[in-house]
Amino acid sequence: MVLLSGGLDSATVLAIAREEGFSPLALSFDYGQRHRIELEAAKQLAADAGVQHSIIAFDLRQFGGSALTSNLDVPKNRAEEQMSKAIPVTYVPARNTIFLSMALGVAETMGAADIFAGMNALDYSGYPDCRPEFIEAFQKLANLATKAGVEGQTFTIHAPLIRMTKSEIIQTGTKLGVNYALTTSCYDPSPNGLACGGCDSCLLRRKGFAEAGVTDPTRYQ
Amino acid sequence: MVLLSGGLDSATVLAIAREEGFSPLALSFDYGQRHRIELEAAKQLAADAGVQHSIIAFDLRQFGGSALTSNLDVPKNRAEEQMSKAIPVTYVPARNTIFLSMALGVAETMGAADIFAGMNALDYSGYPDCRPEFIEAFQKLANLATKAGVEGQTFTIHAPLIRMTKSEIIQTGTKLGVNYALTTSCYDPSPNGLACGGCDSCLLRRKGFAEAGVTDPTRYQ
Repeated sequence: MVLLSGGLDSATVLAIAREEGFSPLALSFDYGQRHRIELEAAKQLAADAGVQHSIIAFDLRQFGGSALTSNLDVPKNRAEEQMSKAIPVTYVPARNTIFLSMALGVAETMGAADIFAGMNALDYSGYPDCRPEFIEAFQKLANLATKAGVEGQTFTIHAPLIRMTKSEIIQTGTKLGVNYALTTSCYDPSPNGLACGGCDSCLLRRKGFAEAGVTDPTRYQ
Repeated sequence: MVLLSGGLDSATVLAIAREEGFSPLALSFDYGQRHRIELEAAKQLAADAGVQHSIIAFDLRQFGGSALTSNLDVPKNRAEEQMSKAIPVTYVPARNTIFLSMALGVAETMGAADIFAGMNALDYSGYPDCRPEFIEAFQKLANLATKAGVEGQTFTIHAPLIRMTKSEIIQTGTKLGVNYALTTSCYDPSPNGLACGGCDSCLLRRKGFAEAGVTDPTRYQ
């Protein structure tokens, strides 16, 4: 199972999982995100890869607490030093814990033991639930929490991008034939789907493409 | 924050948390459970205790895999040896992981650090996500996963019932004034709200009241 947000990281993870010989189900979450347009990108990426795709819905706007799930403004044009200083308001409380928990439920129901996710702890926004120690702790939990785990199946949380730079991710995906024109990274796209170009996610994406020497196919405002 | 299902365990936990001096928010989950009637019980219990009550909705029937979230039959009148032998079909894949993850998101958003839950590893159905090692692993994860955890807040998952028998739970709650007539335990209640009397949850409840020497106020079919 591959968690597929529709962004460039998870699109690359999908290609890596397939390269490793897995025939994954792509799983996306409709969680009330401001940038819900990413679900369309996820659909197209799954179709492009010829893999099955499921969307699980649960509305995190029920508790909010983030610029992605409430009316708080998404910060724009922050300097890199700012990004690394503090966890920004785009942090969604417990998001990746909730995502991996839901994925675990789906995986256990389907009999899948391998969950791939695009967490990355180098070129990222400082989210605590993107760090290797978080992934390790979740994997341990998964094997204690489930009937499958108790009965001897071992769940593995694969986070192949965890120590890669954005530029390395893009180079890897480009080699594997990922069509990055189908991906979307922007936290605050315009209604017609153009990326803002200034949110942390756009800034990291632009820098990554520039450093990788690959043309960024994104249409910016 | 107290996870309040509407059953006797969580009603007792709510009373324990208040006895310990907390002014908790009661949190319930509308997850597509067959015994959705328990949400009415939770509302009444919260009102009875004079605490704030929130319900978060997410539909686990999207992946099913359990007699509580699909059309599988709920087993009836199983002997105790059977209950302890294998994890039954009422097990919901990753349920308590999902519940605690959602609770963590709500708690972090509200600035709460203490999460109380009614997991019990003695008189229970053998669910893996009711064991002390699961609670410990989740607490560790919670502190790695969150902005609050990184910034120095320590989340504590309180599971005061974890090593109590059902009879001890009922005796404790009775001393604390819990109105067990408001609680519901049945996995498969009739449309008019009568308990089936034969599912694992009813059987454990009946045995608990009998052993505690307390009259079970439940209306059975």
